[in-house]
Amino acid sequence: MEKVSVFGAGSWGTALSYVLAQNGHDLLVWTHRAEQAIEINQHSNENYLKGIRLPDGLKATSDLPEAVGHARIYVLAVPTKAIREVCVKIKENMVEPALFVHVSKGIEPDSLKRISEMIREEIPAQWIEDVVVLSGPSHAEEVVLEHPTTVTAACENTKSAERVQDLFMNHYFRVYTNKDVIGVEIGGALKNIIALAVGITDGLGYGDNAKAALMTRGLAEIARLGVKMGATPLTFSGLTGVGDLIVTCTSPHSRNWRAGNMLGKGKSLDDVLQEMGMVVEGIRTTKAAYQLAEAYNVPMPITATLYAVLFEGVSTTEAVDKLMGRMKKNEMEDLIDLL
Amino acid sequence: MEKVSVFGAGSWGTALSYVLAQNGHDLLVWTHRAEQAIEINQHSNENYLKGIRLPDGLKATSDLPEAVGHARIYVLAVPTKAIREVCVKIKENMVEPALFVHVSKGIEPDSLKRISEMIREEIPAQWIEDVVVLSGPSHAEEVVLEHPTTVTAACENTKSAERVQDLFMNHYFRVYTNKDVIGVEIGGALKNIIALAVGITDGLGYGDNAKAALMTRGLAEIARLGVKMGATPLTFSGLTGVGDLIVTCTSPHSRNWRAGNMLGKGKSLDDVLQEMGMVVEGIRTTKAAYQLAEAYNVPMPITATLYAVLFEGVSTTEAVDKLMGRMKKNEMEDLIDLL
Repeated sequence: MEKVSVFGAGSWGTALSYVLAQNGHDLLVWTHRAEQAIEINQHSNENYLKGIRLPDGLKATSDLPEAVGHARIYVLAVPTKAIREVCVKIKENMVEPALFVHVSKGIEPDSLKRISEMIREEIPAQWIEDVVVLSGPSHAEEVVLEHPTTVTAACENTKSAERVQDLFMNHYFRVYTNKDVIGVEIGGALKNIIALAVGITDGLGYGDNAKAALMTRGLAEIARLGVKMGATPLTFSGLTGVGDLIVTCTSPHSRNWRAGNMLGKGKSLDDVLQEMGMVVEGIRTTKAAYQLAEAYNVPMPITATLYAVLFEGVSTTEAVDKLMGRMKKNEMEDLIDLL
Repeated sequence: MEKVSVFGAGSWGTALSYVLAQNGHDLLVWTHRAEQAIEINQHSNENYLKGIRLPDGLKATSDLPEAVGHARIYVLAVPTKAIREVCVKIKENMVEPALFVHVSKGIEPDSLKRISEMIREEIPAQWIEDVVVLSGPSHAEEVVLEHPTTVTAACENTKSAERVQDLFMNHYFRVYTNKDVIGVEIGGALKNIIALAVGITDGLGYGDNAKAALMTRGLAEIARLGVKMGATPLTFSGLTGVGDLIVTCTSPHSRNWRAGNMLGKGKSLDDVLQEMGMVVEGIRTTKAAYQLAEAYNVPMPITATLYAVLFEGVSTTEAVDKLMGRMKKNEMEDLIDLL
């Protein structure tokens, strides 16, 4: 049994707290909304996990110093754009080093930092035991139904990855270790872009053949960038690569797919964001990935096309037609860049 | 404009004939059922492509020698188990060499031959200009709605692949070339096994997280076998690998998924086969792949588990639980075998 604090009580933070509480850990989840903490302490979080009764051991607080003092393992489950702010507040209250686990999927625009890099920039090195990323094909809604789920805990230091594996592992939530932090973070973040694009083609009424083609090319362009950034190519064939891509692009649970779908049906980006009422990570990630493609000089046609739709007013129909038409004649010419 | 004969008027043979007729080729499709030839000549093939009006240029015959005499390009679109028989009949009527294109997805049990190998065994070498395999993520039902579709034409000889590319290519049906015949044939055949397995887990009520994990591990085991057989690893990251796997495992059009789904819901294999009324390639392919895994000494846990369900009476629940539980602790240990 370990003491663990989870920061962020959205769908994923709550689902992971559910797993940790069930595994018998002494858990405290922090949310910045006092009324949400009260609701969670009464065993529900209706806006994020409708109809689910949370386990008795799942306690919440809106007092951040309390959460920091509770444990020396911190699970960060806030949106990418809140990572730095939460880290600053955690740091102000830390009195001893801690293990940081992050479960968010994004890249910071402009700085082009991965989440583990952002954490290491905000928390002084002497207070970081290690940073582990937990990622993979895992809809929160299914985890709390205890449907079988497999994810990856990644860290250069295998001992730290194994600590996280031991924390979360149970009969329905299986955790594998991987040393490739860059590959796991890039795969997790960038699949949201492809999910948006697939949502658009689905919204436009294209079929599964088009979707499969787009996902195939999407995985290739993610891997191409990741490898240039230092990732291991094989990681993109694993749970956090093709696995997470599949679950995000083909499931109605995916909010990135849903946002794309509404765009494909003709809604404006502003309307979509208002209607969703949750963070759609893929939108900011598209900007970051577009900048990464330029910085690393990697062709990323799907990312570039989505960027044009989201930020330059190009119509979805025009964008998708251009994308379907532009592929090279020889399949290997495109894939070979991975080697 | 070329003369082309298509052998086989199931969903896929008819859909490809639709594309070829629309592209202006002089097309004749052969079926062994006289009444089906009459129906096609009246512009429909209701049992296979419900509600679709076939183009005027799409003519059918049940006279095999007529189809052989019509062209010097033969597209074989019959189930794997009919390939040899149709080749024998074609050979008996040939008077000059022809280009063979095959579009089936299977492996012959016991002989463990790929389809291009079966064709080369049945047709004398001097009558074969070349053998090209056309494969990829492509539901027939979507092709005839002219939804964007991308496939791969594979042949060691790029010129032959390009002839096939030119035959089929149009604005909604895009064809890429690839030299890796083994990889394209293995990927196309073996994804049906994973689709059966995914159908079973869906039928048992597992969620998308489990499905994504199963597809990820499935792709890894297919690639592991393919590489041992001489395929290029990258092919499995392409349209005929991950692309075809996605479309087959996630679309209700897939008959292998549907068959698995019924098994997962508790029906017997006999009942499923009777209810489907169409060939379910994945069932015979499971047997062939199980034998291939033994012959090449490659661990293929999903294939082995499905084999136990289909042919050894193991229950679907027991099989899936075992499969979800058995994965290695380190993700790379499993994937690394690809290198």
